[in-house]
Amino acid sequence: MDYSDIRDGEIAVTPPPATDAGLIFIGRIRTPWTSRDQTPRQGALDGPVCRLEIIEPWLPALQGLEKYAYLEVLYWLHLSRRDLVLQKRRGDEARGTFALRSPLRPNPIGTSRVTLVGIEGATVLVRGLDCLDDTPLIDLKPDRFQCAMPEGK
Amino acid sequence: MDYSDIRDGEIAVTPPPATDAGLIFIGRIRTPWTSRDQTPRQGALDGPVCRLEIIEPWLPALQGLEKYAYLEVLYWLHLSRRDLVLQKRRGDEARGTFALRSPLRPNPIGTSRVTLVGIEGATVLVRGLDCLDDTPLIDLKPDRFQCAMPEGK
Repeated sequence: MDYSDIRDGEIAVTPPPATDAGLIFIGRIRTPWTSRDQTPRQGALDGPVCRLEIIEPWLPALQGLEKYAYLEVLYWLHLSRRDLVLQKRRGDEARGTFALRSPLRPNPIGTSRVTLVGIEGATVLVRGLDCLDDTPLIDLKPDRFQCAMPEGK
Repeated sequence: MDYSDIRDGEIAVTPPPATDAGLIFIGRIRTPWTSRDQTPRQGALDGPVCRLEIIEPWLPALQGLEKYAYLEVLYWLHLSRRDLVLQKRRGDEARGTFALRSPLRPNPIGTSRVTLVGIEGATVLVRGLDCLDDTPLIDLKPDRFQCAMPEGK
């Protein structure tokens, strides 16, 4: 997948400057995937262990996280273009960006539900991610649902 | 709840400037709650209808959204302090920010799973939110799980 190409039927707009609010990267995510082609479309809870590497001054904020089986992880899809309002997958009709879970969106924030494997110092080990290696980490918190989901997801 | 007070046992740090990435507000959320005291701790799918008011140039991005029963909504908790690493609820022990779903976090992004009630022009009607009236909207997308959850949540 090329991040800059635009396909027939897709529509890009001129977005306003991204200055309404500012984000702080709280760490980096290490995954086995170094190109978009390798990266799964959606994470699997039986997928490989990935590492959330937390940086200072946020380390004390991990206290108590070990009690939770399921976490919600937010990350910044730093390679994504942000100007598409209609997108088209090959062989599909064009659809609105908000009707897709595509990484290309006005605010390219990925969310994943993961299982906690362990915590080693500043590193949180999880399964269930679907992002490229070296993706900036924005947030992690206990998932709303501390139980298995329907269909085993 | 006061947004600026700090309690015994809580720890604040000096966060780096929030310039790692920039957000664009894509609209506003209208809810019945105008003070933190009124706002539910977690949204309920049988709660009141709330309105996601989308602004240009993003309206075409709603195309196709009507097919989905469950949406994921991301919003900016614009009143939250961002410097707490340990937080304390009354009568509870201090816990790390990442072990809580508190609105006070380095990147105060709220996520909710909601049901789609309808779409009227630039307004998306949903149930399941838990945020203050006039909260800035960051993103909406089909939820990963297009089905009812365990415990009816």
